[in-house]
Amino acid sequence: MTQKDPAPRFPSIPDISERDSVDQFHREELQLALRNRGMPLEAMRYPITPSGIHYLLTHFDIPDVDAGQYRLNVGGLVSNPLSLNLNDIKARPSRTMAVTMECAGNGRSLLNPRVISQPWFTEGIGNAEWTGTPLKGILDEAGLKNEAVNIVFSGADQGIQGDEVQVYQRSLNLEEANREEMMLVYEMNGQALQPQHGYPLRLLLPGWYGMASVKWLDSIQVIGEEFQGFQMTTSYRYTQVKGEPGEPVTLIRVRALMVPPGIPDTVTRNRLATTGTHLLTGRAWAGRLGISRVEVSVDGGLGWSDATLGEQASTFAWRPWSFEWNAVPGWHTLSVRATDTDENVQPVEQFWNAQGMGNNMAQQVRVLVE
Amino acid sequence: MTQKDPAPRFPSIPDISERDSVDQFHREELQLALRNRGMPLEAMRYPITPSGIHYLLTHFDIPDVDAGQYRLNVGGLVSNPLSLNLNDIKARPSRTMAVTMECAGNGRSLLNPRVISQPWFTEGIGNAEWTGTPLKGILDEAGLKNEAVNIVFSGADQGIQGDEVQVYQRSLNLEEANREEMMLVYEMNGQALQPQHGYPLRLLLPGWYGMASVKWLDSIQVIGEEFQGFQMTTSYRYTQVKGEPGEPVTLIRVRALMVPPGIPDTVTRNRLATTGTHLLTGRAWAGRLGISRVEVSVDGGLGWSDATLGEQASTFAWRPWSFEWNAVPGWHTLSVRATDTDENVQPVEQFWNAQGMGNNMAQQVRVLVE
Repeated sequence: MTQKDPAPRFPSIPDISERDSVDQFHREELQLALRNRGMPLEAMRYPITPSGIHYLLTHFDIPDVDAGQYRLNVGGLVSNPLSLNLNDIKARPSRTMAVTMECAGNGRSLLNPRVISQPWFTEGIGNAEWTGTPLKGILDEAGLKNEAVNIVFSGADQGIQGDEVQVYQRSLNLEEANREEMMLVYEMNGQALQPQHGYPLRLLLPGWYGMASVKWLDSIQVIGEEFQGFQMTTSYRYTQVKGEPGEPVTLIRVRALMVPPGIPDTVTRNRLATTGTHLLTGRAWAGRLGISRVEVSVDGGLGWSDATLGEQASTFAWRPWSFEWNAVPGWHTLSVRATDTDENVQPVEQFWNAQGMGNNMAQQVRVLVE
Repeated sequence: MTQKDPAPRFPSIPDISERDSVDQFHREELQLALRNRGMPLEAMRYPITPSGIHYLLTHFDIPDVDAGQYRLNVGGLVSNPLSLNLNDIKARPSRTMAVTMECAGNGRSLLNPRVISQPWFTEGIGNAEWTGTPLKGILDEAGLKNEAVNIVFSGADQGIQGDEVQVYQRSLNLEEANREEMMLVYEMNGQALQPQHGYPLRLLLPGWYGMASVKWLDSIQVIGEEFQGFQMTTSYRYTQVKGEPGEPVTLIRVRALMVPPGIPDTVTRNRLATTGTHLLTGRAWAGRLGISRVEVSVDGGLGWSDATLGEQASTFAWRPWSFEWNAVPGWHTLSVRATDTDENVQPVEQFWNAQGMGNNMAQQVRVLVE
């Protein structure tokens, strides 16, 4: 650069040795980010997320399931054990529903100190249209015995976590399992599930964080006690200290996100926008609750103004919002936060916990207006 | 942990302050990894990569293109300027071809010292079946004038790179542009392109690294000199020092990858496999060249043995290979390297360059056999 070169619009990236630990990530975290897949936030423009853009988290490997040989076995404490092939399941009553799914670890990389696991910023989201059959119908046909306490869902995916060889397993209590919105799904956006989304059949628990919607569903077992599997008792817990039992991670917390305005700088993802009026848009959701309010701040959280809310496509789908921003020259930090129908408001400070779960801190977007 | 606990199978992750810079990544690199999308290597089991698993690199944002209003304009040094809508293009002669696409930056994160850009390890790949019309037919209809030197392809995506506001643009010389395999494509795996893959129309240059296959194709301009756009003269260059002109990045170099055997450890992605025989499988490709040999090492590169080659689906599609591995207890480093029909062999040492382009160093997979 000669002395005549203008100052660059966007600050350059300092040497890594000069950065705080919160700006440094491990090789293992990056490996996970490259296997798993975030939804680029500009894709919130689509009310229904194309399946190839929807977020995706795979705990182990994507398993190789032969749909022709596939059987879902329902057993344990039932009076009528079932073994259903894919056609049996498709022949049952079907329902299609738009559901916003979010990873329980979304927001993890905004935590300080950070936790080593899938390092999402805010892109662990998506809103697809799922088709399948109600879980309750299957459970009713199998006939739960009086001693039934938990329903255990096992996937076909296998790996090691916490030094324990395991298949991916999650459980539900009877009240949750019998809710009418719980489904076994075989289509996403009108097409057979792609392999990475759980082909040929997955569980879908609207309102819950994504870990509960077991992919590549292999069996449903009814048991007479609380299930003690790794993904229930060790992982997916809100804890303050590693190893303490804490509380289970369950329903999606309230969150709003915005489509970053203007155009991006390729490497830093800072934004450049023109002076004048911009219609900021985005989506908000709150698990099985509704959204009562979305507020936008254009000054880094000093002041908040109400956004206009649009209509939800279904009870479990995200709600659109918009806000007119009069952009004046200079650097701005835009932020958005939502309030749910139980009066929970997104925090502007981090929700720190030892596994980095459920951090719904308000998004911040840096924009240079010229 | 009590004294009785067995030693963990996989080493734990050291504190980041104790790690080499090659194991530390910047926040900006991670942001890119979460927006862009790698193909999990177990997906090499599919001869045709499902579109939602195919690698994806977006330089700026995914643009919002209205297919109803869409027109491809072909102009500049042509005797018959064209303005084609999507139906015009679909009405032209069509062809479907399996093509292996790879990001020019694939392998970048294996470099030491590293370069800050999209931080792929080896997952920037995919092999889809593309449908479209030959580019040559369009150029012939437009009629290139005698003064024509370069064809410039502009995308609808816009952003900032090297402090320069730009739309994404790449160029080809006439010889390359007139090759029969070059296409304008509107379908991927038998369906309309998804937005992130260039909907409604993209360029597809089989044999070239992915940056050349301009997505969201907006216009084709024929010019009378070498195109001097940023993505030709500044980015996508093989250089040893930042800023020197170097050589352009063009065709895909030879590479083989294996499906990691056994099952993964969730965080480290180390593998656990059983003692006994494993059929190692994978794919190899070399741009517009063929694959003449694939070799596997089961001892970290000390010895190499020939793998068995399968049949390629098309000239530009990857070639399957397999190798029988007799796994004995202990830690092993598996590696694979390919040779192309021009006798280029994948290196086992890094191919360092200042932009981290075209690094086809042989893959290594750590496996614990028990």
